[in-house]
Amino acid sequence: MAEVIIYGKHAVMAALENPKRKISKAVCTKENIDAIKPLMGNRKLVVVERREFEKLLPQDAVAQGVAVWAEPLKNTDIEEICSNTADKDSCRLLILDQVTDPQNIGAIIRSCAAFGAEAVVVQDKNSPQESGAMLKAAAGTFENMPVCRVTNISRAIEKLKDVGFWIVGMDGYAKDEIASLDKSGKIAVIMGSEGKGMRRLVEESCDILLRLPISPQVESLNVSTAAAIVLYELSKK
Amino acid sequence: MAEVIIYGKHAVMAALENPKRKISKAVCTKENIDAIKPLMGNRKLVVVERREFEKLLPQDAVAQGVAVWAEPLKNTDIEEICSNTADKDSCRLLILDQVTDPQNIGAIIRSCAAFGAEAVVVQDKNSPQESGAMLKAAAGTFENMPVCRVTNISRAIEKLKDVGFWIVGMDGYAKDEIASLDKSGKIAVIMGSEGKGMRRLVEESCDILLRLPISPQVESLNVSTAAAIVLYELSKK
Repeated sequence: MAEVIIYGKHAVMAALENPKRKISKAVCTKENIDAIKPLMGNRKLVVVERREFEKLLPQDAVAQGVAVWAEPLKNTDIEEICSNTADKDSCRLLILDQVTDPQNIGAIIRSCAAFGAEAVVVQDKNSPQESGAMLKAAAGTFENMPVCRVTNISRAIEKLKDVGFWIVGMDGYAKDEIASLDKSGKIAVIMGSEGKGMRRLVEESCDILLRLPISPQVESLNVSTAAAIVLYELSKK
Repeated sequence: MAEVIIYGKHAVMAALENPKRKISKAVCTKENIDAIKPLMGNRKLVVVERREFEKLLPQDAVAQGVAVWAEPLKNTDIEEICSNTADKDSCRLLILDQVTDPQNIGAIIRSCAAFGAEAVVVQDKNSPQESGAMLKAAAGTFENMPVCRVTNISRAIEKLKDVGFWIVGMDGYAKDEIASLDKSGKIAVIMGSEGKGMRRLVEESCDILLRLPISPQVESLNVSTAAAIVLYELSKK
C-alpha cells in the first residue's frame, strides 16, 4: 500500500509515539530537532533546510517543518468493534455515509477522540484513504482512533444492531432533537454528507432519526461541526 | 478598500441576495447560469468557459463555477451592538481573541448564524480581513452576521458589561463546564486561539471561566468546533 506523508507537529509527534505506526523516513528542519529527536528512538532523523523541506511536501501542506513517511494504519474490522464493545454498558460509535472531504474526516476523528467515541465506520469505496491532510486535521488523534472501512454500511449496521447498538440517524428534517435521546446504552450515530445527507437505504436502517436545533434561516452545519455537537451531546450523563 | 472575490455557490448566492453588498462583477460558467441569473436583477453576468473561470480565481479556491467581485461589508460598531441588544432579555455574542485562520472564522460565523448569535467581535489588528476563503467557509451566512472589529477587546468587553452582558471565557483549565452556566440573560463568550488561548488581560476581564468536557487524552478542539459546541449549549433553554 502507498505510503502516507504525515506532517504538522501534532500529527507527526503522535505518529512517532505510536508503536503500531511503521515509519520509513523522518525529516525536520533545524528548529524542530529538540521536539522530534526524543521521540525517534533508534530511527534516523534527517535534518534539512526549510527550502529543501518544502520541496519534499505537497504544495498546500502546512507542515510546520516536520514530516514522516509511513505505512497507513491497519483497518479495524466491524467484528472487532462488535467484540471490543460486547461487555460495555455504554459506548458511542460514529458512522459516516458519503462524507468525502479528508479534512472533515480528520476533524471528526479529533472530536471522536475528544468525546470518547470507540471508533469511526466509513464506507470503503466512497471514503478517501488515510492522507496527510486528514491526519493534520485530526491533530494527532488519528493514531489511537480505530477506523473501520466497510464494503456495505447497511450490513455493518445490522451487525451492530445484533450486538445491541441503537442506531441514530442525523437528519435535518427529523421531528425530534438529539437532546431528547435516552443516552444510556450503546449508540451508533450516522452522519450523511452535507449536500445529500444519508442514502435512503442507510436512513431506513436507523432506529430513530434526530436533528440538531439550528435556525431555520441556516440550511445546514458543516458535517464535522454537526458531528462534534452530536458527540458532545451524547457524552453528557 | 480592496475588493473581495467571493466564490462558492452558497457564498455567491447569499451575496447577490444581500442588498447591502456592492458587487462590481459577477462571473459564472455555463452550468451555473440557471442558478445565478435569477439573482442578478439588472446587474450584468459574465459567462465564461471553465478554464478561463479558473484563471480568474486564487489557485486554491474551490469556486464551483461562480464568483463575484464585491466591496467588503461595513463594520458594525460595538456601540451599535450595545444599542441593538439593549431591549433584549436574552442574547448571545461571540468574541474571538487571536483567532487568525480565515476558514475557522468563516466556520464560526456559520455556527453563530445556526445558533442565533447576534454578532461576532474580533480584534481589528490581529484578525484577517473579509476574504473569499472566510466567506466560503461561512456558506452564505456571512452576509447577515454583524462582524464588529475593535481596536481593543478589553475595552469592548467593558462596554458590553455596562449594558448587562455576562462575560464567559472558554479555558481548557477552568474548573466548571459550560453546561453548568445559568443561560438566562445576555451572554458574551470569548474564545482564544487554539495554541495560546486568550491573552491574560482579556482573561482577567471575564466574569467566569468555563471549559468543554473533553477527554484528558486530547489537548484541545479546533477553535471553530469548540465555538460551535458552546453556541449549541447556550442555545438551549
